[in-house]
Amino acid sequence: MFREKIKVLDCTIRDGGLINNHNFDSRFVREVYKAVSAAGIDYMEIGYKNSPELFSRKEYGAWKFCDDDDIKKIIDGIESKTKLSVMVDIGRVNLNDVKPANKSPIKMIRVASYVKDIDKAISMVNHFNQKGYETAINIMAISKDQGPELDEALHQIEEESKADVVYIVDSFGALYQETTEYLVKKFTNIIKTKEVGFHGHNPQQLAFSNTIEAIIHDANYLDATVYGIGRAAGNCPLELLMGFLKNPKFDIRPILDLISNEFIPLRNKIEWGYIIPFAIAGMMNEHPRAAMALRKSDQKENYREFYDSLVTTENDD
Amino acid sequence: MFREKIKVLDCTIRDGGLINNHNFDSRFVREVYKAVSAAGIDYMEIGYKNSPELFSRKEYGAWKFCDDDDIKKIIDGIESKTKLSVMVDIGRVNLNDVKPANKSPIKMIRVASYVKDIDKAISMVNHFNQKGYETAINIMAISKDQGPELDEALHQIEEESKADVVYIVDSFGALYQETTEYLVKKFTNIIKTKEVGFHGHNPQQLAFSNTIEAIIHDANYLDATVYGIGRAAGNCPLELLMGFLKNPKFDIRPILDLISNEFIPLRNKIEWGYIIPFAIAGMMNEHPRAAMALRKSDQKENYREFYDSLVTTENDD
Repeated sequence: MFREKIKVLDCTIRDGGLINNHNFDSRFVREVYKAVSAAGIDYMEIGYKNSPELFSRKEYGAWKFCDDDDIKKIIDGIESKTKLSVMVDIGRVNLNDVKPANKSPIKMIRVASYVKDIDKAISMVNHFNQKGYETAINIMAISKDQGPELDEALHQIEEESKADVVYIVDSFGALYQETTEYLVKKFTNIIKTKEVGFHGHNPQQLAFSNTIEAIIHDANYLDATVYGIGRAAGNCPLELLMGFLKNPKFDIRPILDLISNEFIPLRNKIEWGYIIPFAIAGMMNEHPRAAMALRKSDQKENYREFYDSLVTTENDD
Repeated sequence: MFREKIKVLDCTIRDGGLINNHNFDSRFVREVYKAVSAAGIDYMEIGYKNSPELFSRKEYGAWKFCDDDDIKKIIDGIESKTKLSVMVDIGRVNLNDVKPANKSPIKMIRVASYVKDIDKAISMVNHFNQKGYETAINIMAISKDQGPELDEALHQIEEESKADVVYIVDSFGALYQETTEYLVKKFTNIIKTKEVGFHGHNPQQLAFSNTIEAIIHDANYLDATVYGIGRAAGNCPLELLMGFLKNPKFDIRPILDLISNEFIPLRNKIEWGYIIPFAIAGMMNEHPRAAMALRKSDQKENYREFYDSLVTTENDD
């Protein structure tokens, strides 16, 4: 599978940061940046650009804020063609904190948005575009939000926004390949002047196959993370995606070394991957919030009760 | 997804036995049988029917041989509609050891065969059919064996065999959804008087999605294992497949309990699942043999060297 237009975005530090309050130390982040660069990955998303007035620096690590100075410590002295990206949430960033692109190590800003917030997302994306950034709108929780509002939002994005990419974000890992196909076709039918991207989650072990499905139907921007790290069950494993793409510009070896040296030890300290409560949340098309809370309790292997609690909640709708 | 013709075969003990030389104790196997029965699963494959003249009972556990007496100890006193199945390998079973079906607790016999051995497989299947068993031919290593010999074998099976089911076995976990679609269509085009089945392996986290793909294209017999247990990376997780099928006859709760109580502790003693050397073997379309050996050595996390060794071997072809 080799299609020149395909761009891979590694969001290891950004999505992985959701497990540990963005507390990766500089040495670790440098190792990731070094490996991702040597592997030839197109983009690396290093964290969120959140306003320090809204979140405490004591509670959260550097990659919740992505100050230019912190980023410079990571990239300094490492040869790289990988572009850096940050994610912003609506209402959580002070736009004045974002310098023009030519004064920042960041090349791309991605705005995470629910369908209902699309007006705000468009306005933010256009602001960042004005400042010289590549931009994307990442439409979250798509498996719960496929009514006519989605079509309307896509038309608005196509007509009013300067976004370079519009992402399908399967926040709950609830999509199967047929639903992925349906959504990618819907997106590419409406979004003609921008690229379509896909960000999968992995509670049902479908993040990689859904990413393949998205590729088949012409999504060109693909998110993945090293060893599948990410919130709850995690994301599409970067190493699997590279094995599938077979693009000669990629070299999987630095990623294999990174997993051996950094991610195997890390996985003993923090948890992600195929874990039954996350799988249950995914098959029920639910946010993994309750499953993540369960995993921090002394009931962490009590799957039946957790399953029944979700069934009960569902019936309350 | 509810299609009445779909049958789920749990091969937890049979494929899981490849990790531990079939040494599951009776208590554990009874727990599995109890849960699979309560969950409403159609078949449970309990092991291999191998000749004790060829394999030592000291080296291998009971489920390498599946003596009727051992099976009776498992099922005794448990209410169940689940049919029992065993697998046989060509040249490893003494046909005289297999009693007529009406004198055995076994209901189905599946013959595992490479394309090249299809004549022997057909002759065995017809023998077991004569004895009153449901039968299947499981075509192994299909990702390496798709030449005209495969078409010929399928025509022979259709015309000469009494098999009830013909399985696509992705022994190396090398199929993607497009190759799965291609193969299922090829099988269903030729096999008109029997059902088509799918048995996936999971090195690339694709066993479940390939099983879904097989369902979409009309395979009706589906293999899965509890918590994905099985040789190397394991198989399609039964709990995910049940979540997808949504057939009202299934109840996922007994399987969730079984994972909580038995498989979480077991996973701390024996290894299966998403492990990088298995993933590498899968993406290279290779048997996980070398990866399994690596995992037993002190080099078990040395992924780069393992990757390079496979690349080198490949170029020697």
